[in-house]
Amino acid sequence: MTVQTLAQDTDFGRIYAEVQDFYARHFHLLDAGRAEEWARTYTEDGYFHPEVLDRPVQGHAALTEGVRRTHAELTAKGAQRRHWHGMVAVAPRDADTLDVRCYALVFETPRGGASALRMSCVCEDVLVRDGGDWKIRERKVTRDDMTPA
Amino acid sequence: MTVQTLAQDTDFGRIYAEVQDFYARHFHLLDAGRAEEWARTYTEDGYFHPEVLDRPVQGHAALTEGVRRTHAELTAKGAQRRHWHGMVAVAPRDADTLDVRCYALVFETPRGGASALRMSCVCEDVLVRDGGDWKIRERKVTRDDMTPA
Amino acid sequence: MTVQTLAQDTDFGRIYAEVQDFYARHFHLLDAGRAEEWARTYTEDGYFHPEVLDRPVQGHAALTEGVRRTHAELTAKGAQRRHWHGMVAVAPRDADTLDVRCYALVFETPRGGASALRMSCVCEDVLVRDGGDWKIRERKVTRDDMTPA
Repeated sequence: MTVQTLAQDTDFGRIYAEVQDFYARHFHLLDAGRAEEWARTYTEDGYFHPEVLDRPVQGHAALTEGVRRTHAELTAKGAQRRHWHGMVAVAPRDADTLDVRCYALVFETPRGGASALRMSCVCEDVLVRDGGDWKIRERKVTRDDMTPA
Repeated sequence: MTVQTLAQDTDFGRIYAEVQDFYARHFHLLDAGRAEEWARTYTEDGYFHPEVLDRPVQGHAALTEGVRRTHAELTAKGAQRRHWHGMVAVAPRDADTLDVRCYALVFETPRGGASALRMSCVCEDVLVRDGGDWKIRERKVTRDDMTPA
Repeated sequence: MTVQTLAQDTDFGRIYAEVQDFYARHFHLLDAGRAEEWARTYTEDGYFHPEVLDRPVQGHAALTEGVRRTHAELTAKGAQRRHWHGMVAVAPRDADTLDVRCYALVFETPRGGASALRMSCVCEDVLVRDGGDWKIRERKVTRDDMTPA
């Protein structure tokens, strides 16, 4: 990524807003444990690849299953997670494909307890237009505590 | 809320930016203790309803009074709060009415001390166009530490 | 700053998105220690003035040197910083000059350790159009722990 403008297109304002709005709805679903609806914010063959895993979690069934398991654990211990994306850099490849690089924070609040920052990450997505909305085709996430500084 | 596009309108980019800019100015006023100016970012009958209260705080006088009291307490103990909205999902009902759902964080920094996260919340607003700007007609806030996960 | 609309211009959506995208790329460079590229997101005579310094850090050479030193220290202790801007209020002076006021958070994660909030600040920028991109001409930053509340 070089620091050059990616924003000359007259549509950049709309596309950038759509990406932010997409991330908001995507994480509202995740943090509510709505696993299947969340999985459908990926393309059919879309994948989520945290660097800690040898292989990506790919496809709606696997993505759904992962979120169901995690959400059940969080519910059992009475904790609410909130995922935040920020510092979102959007580089359109073409009208229907975007490279996005952003930061991600995960906050967790136990019922009756104090909210805490759990994780700081970097997220690299490839978003593609699918009908009227964006979907995630590829997601790679690195954790700041596990990455050479 | 379903994950479908709310972003097809050609104005979506501008509206989404206006909402973010509005929240920025709204919280700059709040965190500076500019109570009356902050209250006027609500409609005349606009209300703020934290789930911990039986009834909403409604109208400019009541909103102003609440902020004055809180700001005096913070000033007395030498603390600076910063409110952050993020993961903002904007669903236009029509050209002049928006349903917004977003996350909210409150940070607090004592003079000479360490900044800390104090609270993680979910905020649901109804924003309406009022002259050239947006105003809050309805706000409901739930705290993650008090909500069933 | 008064709470009045600054968002009537039809270009406001695009400009607001460009500012957010600019800050994202600007901080990706900073947090990666890409000092020279980061310095070039300032104008030739651009400056960064943290209130704790008597004089601003001005010009590409001084800006580069400051980041190189800090990044070497962070690398030596195995820490990764992440700068977040948020609550961004954009007030266009004219088509090529923007006054921006926003909040800033700095998070730090030691390798193998827990992420933590290090600092909460307020940032006031003057951005100017330079070729196809925005650049920082003036930046003033106040830290919440050092500012009268």
